[in-house]
Amino acid sequence: MMTTRCPAEVSEVQALIADALPRVQRVFDEQLASDLPSVTRLCAHVGRYRGKMLRPTLVLACGLAEGRREIGREHEVCAAVCEMVHMATLVHDDVLDEADTRRRAPTINRMNGNESAVILGDYLIAGAYHLCSTLDTQAVALEVGRVSMTLCAGELLQLSRRGDFSLDEATYLEIVDRKTAALIALACGLGARCSGADAGDGGSGGGGGVSRFERFGRELGIAFQIQDDLLDLTGRAGDLGKPTGKDLEKGKLTLPIIRHLASATPMERGRMLRLLESPLTRREELAAELARSGAIDSARQTALERVERGKRAIEGVEDSPAKALLLLMADAVVDRTR
Amino acid sequence: MMTTRCPAEVSEVQALIADALPRVQRVFDEQLASDLPSVTRLCAHVGRYRGKMLRPTLVLACGLAEGRREIGREHEVCAAVCEMVHMATLVHDDVLDEADTRRRAPTINRMNGNESAVILGDYLIAGAYHLCSTLDTQAVALEVGRVSMTLCAGELLQLSRRGDFSLDEATYLEIVDRKTAALIALACGLGARCSGADAGDGGSGGGGGVSRFERFGRELGIAFQIQDDLLDLTGRAGDLGKPTGKDLEKGKLTLPIIRHLASATPMERGRMLRLLESPLTRREELAAELARSGAIDSARQTALERVERGKRAIEGVEDSPAKALLLLMADAVVDRTR
Repeated sequence: MMTTRCPAEVSEVQALIADALPRVQRVFDEQLASDLPSVTRLCAHVGRYRGKMLRPTLVLACGLAEGRREIGREHEVCAAVCEMVHMATLVHDDVLDEADTRRRAPTINRMNGNESAVILGDYLIAGAYHLCSTLDTQAVALEVGRVSMTLCAGELLQLSRRGDFSLDEATYLEIVDRKTAALIALACGLGARCSGADAGDGGSGGGGGVSRFERFGRELGIAFQIQDDLLDLTGRAGDLGKPTGKDLEKGKLTLPIIRHLASATPMERGRMLRLLESPLTRREELAAELARSGAIDSARQTALERVERGKRAIEGVEDSPAKALLLLMADAVVDRTR
Repeated sequence: MMTTRCPAEVSEVQALIADALPRVQRVFDEQLASDLPSVTRLCAHVGRYRGKMLRPTLVLACGLAEGRREIGREHEVCAAVCEMVHMATLVHDDVLDEADTRRRAPTINRMNGNESAVILGDYLIAGAYHLCSTLDTQAVALEVGRVSMTLCAGELLQLSRRGDFSLDEATYLEIVDRKTAALIALACGLGARCSGADAGDGGSGGGGGVSRFERFGRELGIAFQIQDDLLDLTGRAGDLGKPTGKDLEKGKLTLPIIRHLASATPMERGRMLRLLESPLTRREELAAELARSGAIDSARQTALERVERGKRAIEGVEDSPAKALLLLMADAVVDRTR
């Protein structure tokens, strides 16, 4: 679960979630169980990538915030599904990024080759779909399928703009919205849906039960990715459990750089482009330049604004300890070093 | 559609299917349509890999053989789903095999890099799941999820035995059953299911409506893969539209080699192992050795037996032109040069 400051009112709901997460984990593990030792071994290794369990926690917290006092089987299944889709994207991302470590563990591609990593990711995706098809309602499978297509489209858009130093802010946000925010929005929406929230828009601007949680998740997701990008630029590999500078190495332009280039003088622009050509050796110099021009602060400010927007999306949700937890989690997204 | 000799009785049902396949294609294309040009471009290229449309044809033919006189929307959707899952495996297989050409066209990994190929495959899988979740029944999505997990498990099993010259026939068949036959069995079963066939086992040995078509598809699938393996050993690249010898290059032992090694004298065995160490330069010598020992004929015989077993599985299905087409298609699986 996310680490958050914990006022007394939310500790009960945190305990409820902490209690449910091992059950989510059991659903996850049982779904991937195989008679083949080679499959079991790989799935066990994926367990080592488990982190803050942000998406499952959001499913459960949104489920509770939508007026449920208990976490049901369907919340746990949706939580496991979101985590499985997320794990699949991590395993495939590591192939794309030629990454060697994740959460201080060797990546699947490093250990067993790209082939195993590609197929293991496929196995996780198939497991997620199979699992959500076991629910009473088909609506979840339909949403998970739709959002999975969105994730892939976001990744393909990002790939098509790799190494393109003319990437603008609108396209950057489009990529982030699809490849990161869509899944976090799904997690929040599914949680509310499982608690019986209305799936419609609700009309009159306010938004229905599901859609306000989705908007909350979406803004959180965008803030989360901006923070991730900032950590890749300025974070410490030791804190993150993986190397930094990967975005630059892979030609992915992120918000601070886009902002810097957009407002730079021709001379500053030229200097930045030269730094981008040798990002690995000159990362600190590059980060210092971005800090000096205010681009780092500006991106951080945008992440904070997105968090506030997210909080406003659930203004209409009745106050409860679960809602208080969601608001704390929103702050924690931009207040983290890993 | 598969090329088959065509007695008069089946030409009507062939026409019905030929008429439906463009509709299947439309479902396929509409499902993958995207607002992003980079996605649309890649999906259009995948269209060039379209071959015999074996799986969609089997969905439709089994649907008709189960007593329907018309092809319904649900048959077309299931046909498109099976083709989409198949295309996803082709795209990812080409990454695994580092293949440069498929059906005389460059592979996605060759053209756009492994990254795009991995994500495009994911996009196709997500599209397939989303599409089958649009059906009235959840049973299809559940089956597609289950079989997709089986495909991946088969691939992982194969990967774990790469370059292992002690692979036995039982494990080879286990791999083939999962990675190839399961999807063809699914196609046949879904076709019958959409025509209202009983999904249960039917009891008393005969098997229910769906399961006998699944057994038909499974045997066909095993025969199909054995024939594919034979073509990789003895076929001509010009006929196949892709290079031969890929299995050997990738350390995949296939049935003729397994049979040969199992029955060889120590001297023959030593010679074969030396040939396997430089498979690309000595493929013809290797194929000649396998032909001389009778291993090629023996594997071919097994493929023919599997076809006969498949035909027997649908013995209880009422005679019809569609059933006659299925029997012809079964023969065509082992009677092909590409």
